[in-house]
Amino acid sequence: MIKIVVDAMGGDNSPLVNVKGVVKALGSIKDISIVLVGDEAQLRALLQAEKYDASRLEILHAPDVISCNDKPTEAIKTKKDSSMSKAFELLRTDPEARALVSIGSTGALLAGTVLRVGRIRGVKRPAFCPILPTVVPNQIVAICDSGANVDCDPQYLQQFAVMGSLYLQKAFGVHNPRVALLNIGVEEEKGDALRKETYQLLQNTPALNFVGNMESRDLLSGEFDLVVCDGFAGNVLLKSTEGACMELMRLLKRGMMSSFKSKIGALLIKKKMYEIKDLMDYNNYGGAVLLGASKTVVKGHGSSNDDAVFHCIEQAYKMEKNNLIEAIATHLAVEASNSSNA
Amino acid sequence: MIKIVVDAMGGDNSPLVNVKGVVKALGSIKDISIVLVGDEAQLRALLQAEKYDASRLEILHAPDVISCNDKPTEAIKTKKDSSMSKAFELLRTDPEARALVSIGSTGALLAGTVLRVGRIRGVKRPAFCPILPTVVPNQIVAICDSGANVDCDPQYLQQFAVMGSLYLQKAFGVHNPRVALLNIGVEEEKGDALRKETYQLLQNTPALNFVGNMESRDLLSGEFDLVVCDGFAGNVLLKSTEGACMELMRLLKRGMMSSFKSKIGALLIKKKMYEIKDLMDYNNYGGAVLLGASKTVVKGHGSSNDDAVFHCIEQAYKMEKNNLIEAIATHLAVEASNSSNA
Repeated sequence: MIKIVVDAMGGDNSPLVNVKGVVKALGSIKDISIVLVGDEAQLRALLQAEKYDASRLEILHAPDVISCNDKPTEAIKTKKDSSMSKAFELLRTDPEARALVSIGSTGALLAGTVLRVGRIRGVKRPAFCPILPTVVPNQIVAICDSGANVDCDPQYLQQFAVMGSLYLQKAFGVHNPRVALLNIGVEEEKGDALRKETYQLLQNTPALNFVGNMESRDLLSGEFDLVVCDGFAGNVLLKSTEGACMELMRLLKRGMMSSFKSKIGALLIKKKMYEIKDLMDYNNYGGAVLLGASKTVVKGHGSSNDDAVFHCIEQAYKMEKNNLIEAIATHLAVEASNSSNA
Repeated sequence: MIKIVVDAMGGDNSPLVNVKGVVKALGSIKDISIVLVGDEAQLRALLQAEKYDASRLEILHAPDVISCNDKPTEAIKTKKDSSMSKAFELLRTDPEARALVSIGSTGALLAGTVLRVGRIRGVKRPAFCPILPTVVPNQIVAICDSGANVDCDPQYLQQFAVMGSLYLQKAFGVHNPRVALLNIGVEEEKGDALRKETYQLLQNTPALNFVGNMESRDLLSGEFDLVVCDGFAGNVLLKSTEGACMELMRLLKRGMMSSFKSKIGALLIKKKMYEIKDLMDYNNYGGAVLLGASKTVVKGHGSSNDDAVFHCIEQAYKMEKNNLIEAIATHLAVEASNSSNA
């Protein structure tokens, strides 16, 4: 049985989507047990409408919530009765609790992971690794790091590559993930000192299927499984891609609603539009993880629906089932002994 | 009379679009004269079909072309008979030649500007500054630097801000441009050492209307006129935005062409789609410039049509008409004397 702690609060539609996501997970994954952390009265009321295996669900009462407006580190330290703080406390003290899933404040979740969970032995810096859909159906792309480390050295990026590559294999079954270095051109000699040195390191890391530099315009092309970068560039990459898609969709919608004729047209292509929306919808793929932490932590979008919460739980389950953390620890130990022998 | 050198070669549809763009410019701007550099026989043949004021057009023969596959610096140094090299040579030696417009290789144009044109006195690093449309009609946003300088210090970014701000005023008539610093969050304390120090510098530069940090997801929102960043982040920002828009449009097109019903729908919304395409089309806005160079150099997209070439020429004309280079030199001298007095 794999025990997963689920923060029931903090999302745009919490705790409803959290409760429904948990019920779905209990139904579809038989060797999972869940601790739902949040306002007990609210959770019990919502659960009354649901059918689930009660023997695999516990509730841990937490009357308070950390919001996106709270200062992350401060909130984790002072809001002891918040659902996220209580969830971290359980993860830290209960050896059976193996993973935490939350759709609450990203900053607080990162701070909590660093302060309460700690790193795998040998990890220089934990890295934030979200996934995005690509234009190739059922194919995702991961970005590592997307914002946890704004100042990086080449050795950090090498570890991001190794951890991200293992993650894609263990959590998503991606075979021999194609790892690319984010750069301003595809040629080997491109970029700043960080990129040039990282390029050489990645090329000489046997555990990786390193395919060279990539440009940000090809992020969604489906040609790469993992994009390696410092947290500043990764954050720019992730948010500009999301922003551009959002603004363009908004323009399209506005355009289609602006005349009678175009409204009829919109009706006729509605199904196709939904298919595209579906393809590009992160709710269907899973959450972001903090790779390098000594326990599994999965962060879903704040606007997650119940499917998205379910996918985050499923993802945490797979990471644990396939022993990702052990695999990372083993690989880093091997890399370390290789480089000390070299 | 403002004399502008136009590289006739190097674009996807050169020299046809270059010739047509030049003819348009001669027709609509009366105090402009143009030197068209490229294969003379080809250019004369194309010009035969056009009506224009021949007294304001010269042709400079150049039998060779620099392509995007050539190594930029090497090409500028060795391909002496290429249209771009000859254009730079003219810009360097003819005191009346005030600006160069090209839709050829970006790398070669940057290399040529650095090697043959040089910088304005006081400029630490020239910066590449492209413009993008926003979701607000007729409103653009400029990114400075978008790739010329991958390693930057805060003083470079401060100059990018000053030069970009003057550029928007002089070339596009933007009043009191809103200048933002690209960062991973909007709060003042966000980002790495470069961002934190630059934030303070920008806040204390009287010539600027500095509005604080911005996140990449808001690039197209129309809330900012100028985004200041190092060339690495700027390149990631620019290309991921372009890439995401392109991939999404491709998905939409594919979706709409996939069934009879959706094809009818597509017909009905065609006009609206073209309006959006038009809004987001760089051809309607102008080219990228290398700010800080001692002569005006404007780079259009390789896939420019004749309208885009015309807009690039018009932009170069406005920059010269409004004495942008002089304005930059004056401002930098003032900043320098301010900081030495401080």
